[in-house]
Amino acid sequence: MRILVNERGARRLLARHLWVFRRDVVSGPEAPGLYPVYWGKRFLALALYNPQSDLTVRAFRFLPHPEPKEALLENLDRALRRRLPHLEGEPEGGFRLAHAEGDLLPGLVVDYYAGHAVVQATAYAWEDLLPEVAERLRLLARSVLAKNDAKARALEGLPLYVRPLLGEVPERVAVREGRVRYWVDLKEGQKTGAYLDQRGNRILMERFQGERALDVFSYAGGFGLHLALGFQEVISVDSSAEALKRAEENARLNGLSLKTLEANAFDLLRELERAGERFDLIVLDPPAFAKGKKDVERAYRAYKEVNLRAMKLLKPQGVLATASCSHHMTEPLFYQMLLEAAQDAHRAFRVLEKRGQPFDHPVLLTHPETHYLKFALLEAVD
Amino acid sequence: MRILVNERGARRLLARHLWVFRRDVVSGPEAPGLYPVYWGKRFLALALYNPQSDLTVRAFRFLPHPEPKEALLENLDRALRRRLPHLEGEPEGGFRLAHAEGDLLPGLVVDYYAGHAVVQATAYAWEDLLPEVAERLRLLARSVLAKNDAKARALEGLPLYVRPLLGEVPERVAVREGRVRYWVDLKEGQKTGAYLDQRGNRILMERFQGERALDVFSYAGGFGLHLALGFQEVISVDSSAEALKRAEENARLNGLSLKTLEANAFDLLRELERAGERFDLIVLDPPAFAKGKKDVERAYRAYKEVNLRAMKLLKPQGVLATASCSHHMTEPLFYQMLLEAAQDAHRAFRVLEKRGQPFDHPVLLTHPETHYLKFALLEAVD
Repeated sequence: MRILVNERGARRLLARHLWVFRRDVVSGPEAPGLYPVYWGKRFLALALYNPQSDLTVRAFRFLPHPEPKEALLENLDRALRRRLPHLEGEPEGGFRLAHAEGDLLPGLVVDYYAGHAVVQATAYAWEDLLPEVAERLRLLARSVLAKNDAKARALEGLPLYVRPLLGEVPERVAVREGRVRYWVDLKEGQKTGAYLDQRGNRILMERFQGERALDVFSYAGGFGLHLALGFQEVISVDSSAEALKRAEENARLNGLSLKTLEANAFDLLRELERAGERFDLIVLDPPAFAKGKKDVERAYRAYKEVNLRAMKLLKPQGVLATASCSHHMTEPLFYQMLLEAAQDAHRAFRVLEKRGQPFDHPVLLTHPETHYLKFALLEAVD
Repeated sequence: MRILVNERGARRLLARHLWVFRRDVVSGPEAPGLYPVYWGKRFLALALYNPQSDLTVRAFRFLPHPEPKEALLENLDRALRRRLPHLEGEPEGGFRLAHAEGDLLPGLVVDYYAGHAVVQATAYAWEDLLPEVAERLRLLARSVLAKNDAKARALEGLPLYVRPLLGEVPERVAVREGRVRYWVDLKEGQKTGAYLDQRGNRILMERFQGERALDVFSYAGGFGLHLALGFQEVISVDSSAEALKRAEENARLNGLSLKTLEANAFDLLRELERAGERFDLIVLDPPAFAKGKKDVERAYRAYKEVNLRAMKLLKPQGVLATASCSHHMTEPLFYQMLLEAAQDAHRAFRVLEKRGQPFDHPVLLTHPETHYLKFALLEAVD
């Protein structure tokens, strides 16, 4: 039982990309599962396989191993071992335990929220392995929830459901992050609840103090909470009243105060500029403006527009914390966009930090799809 | 007394680049000094000015100020204030106190080595200000040395000399860095002695343990010393016997052991591969292969060659720490080169860290010449 790929498929795997699409698969077993991939007689990789999916082959190991399942679960063990010291240091924190392709665990995401694990599987071959995944998580978490309601599962021919795999899953938990805590709804919420990839960037905000800070695209207040520790006034802006309600709840949880403002970010930044408002620190954490390759040009303009406006709103020595989570808005494009925005704003910026994905959202060099998060901290020179 | 620039010069300053070349200067004073720059009646910046230099105008402030000298020394104060908490935390450490254009102090570099400051000035207008610079350093350092022997000074019409400005300057000092110390010759040595920009990257090596580590382009052993704390065997490779002698001296200072090997890195990596040698960790810290724009293509190939060879020499889960200090080898090119090297080596790597310049070597977003250092930490997947 093996998968045969053509030369193009082989070249991808030899260049250590993890994916081979259906058009490059010559033959394979009828049932989804874990199989070795060959190019003629040459072994290439072990892979998750689903003949019903256009993304047919997802490699997870490039050295031969007699038991594919063991090799895959070994990858999970390695991923968990890498997180362990951090979890032990902050058991009430939030971390990503498994980051899919970035951890050589294609199609599997596991998040940890203050003692509770949430599993999302979007590749068919994981379905039978979920009890074993949950067993391994038992060592780290009091409960394990399968949050298998992503639309991507339908493309794999998998059912959509949300159900506990282990232990008692609470509706929501308070997660500690630096000097604040925030609520996570385990069963609801965008993604699995919070945006753990920005954890370190949010904590970074605690080193700043001043009068006025502006948190644009604030969602449930993540950045704003940390800013509220050091700034006299923090304004959280989001277009969703629901998100702002959660931000206020999170502020109460910490005994902090946030001013929330339901508004379109583009309009609001323009209005603030017209009104001559100035800020000591501005956070821009927009949603992915570029969902696909064809959106890049439009997205570039949108990113530049909000960054340019924010740059103009900063006091001398003011700080801009700016992010992009679009894979298609690549790192070079992101920094090119910031350079152009600064040039057009006629303001010089010192680069305080250039950050990417944290240790628990690893990037695989040869699988560029794993890279999406950019984050820059810029200080206005005068 | 003012400098007038043409439209092209004005556009550069409005886009917050710091430099205007002679061809774009319409008129200016006869004597070098600090002057305001205008485009017609529009104030653009305060700048260091030298009519004898092709690099005639170097801006340091974009808001008007009645006393250019005060504004410039204020920039120095800001730079020093930013370093202060770090110096207080590690008075026997090594830090860059002033990073020229990156700190809005064009042409001025000040390094700190365990209580002693070394000043390098390569713009004419600094020459008269050196006593005041030394006065400000008195608060932080026991001695101040002017190491004004860089060839760039000749282009400015400045004399070359090395002399104390303040206090007693020792021949050499032992600088603390993480868990090791190393010797710095204050009056000799490449640059001002050490490569302070890699300080944090070298300390990062202390988190790794294993059997065998290889430090290629080792210079005076910087990375190797930290590795020797955690590895049973560390081989330091350099083409300079003099550099390796210093590496051995540094090892003795710490009671550590390094194997030194005088060799051409390209040849050696090929030989090690042929001999089937494998390492748990390899450091590649080559000199700037691309000195100018026209060298980029050749440099790209050279970087790819050493990285490809090193990638093949790693054990499974082995770590590659790889750097480039060529400005012309841009960050996007550097990561493109690493991707291609990994693809050709048929090895997948997890990106553990992507690092750039530390806080004391700041990058100015709108003056790309300030950006040169790239550093990646990659872990071989299998």
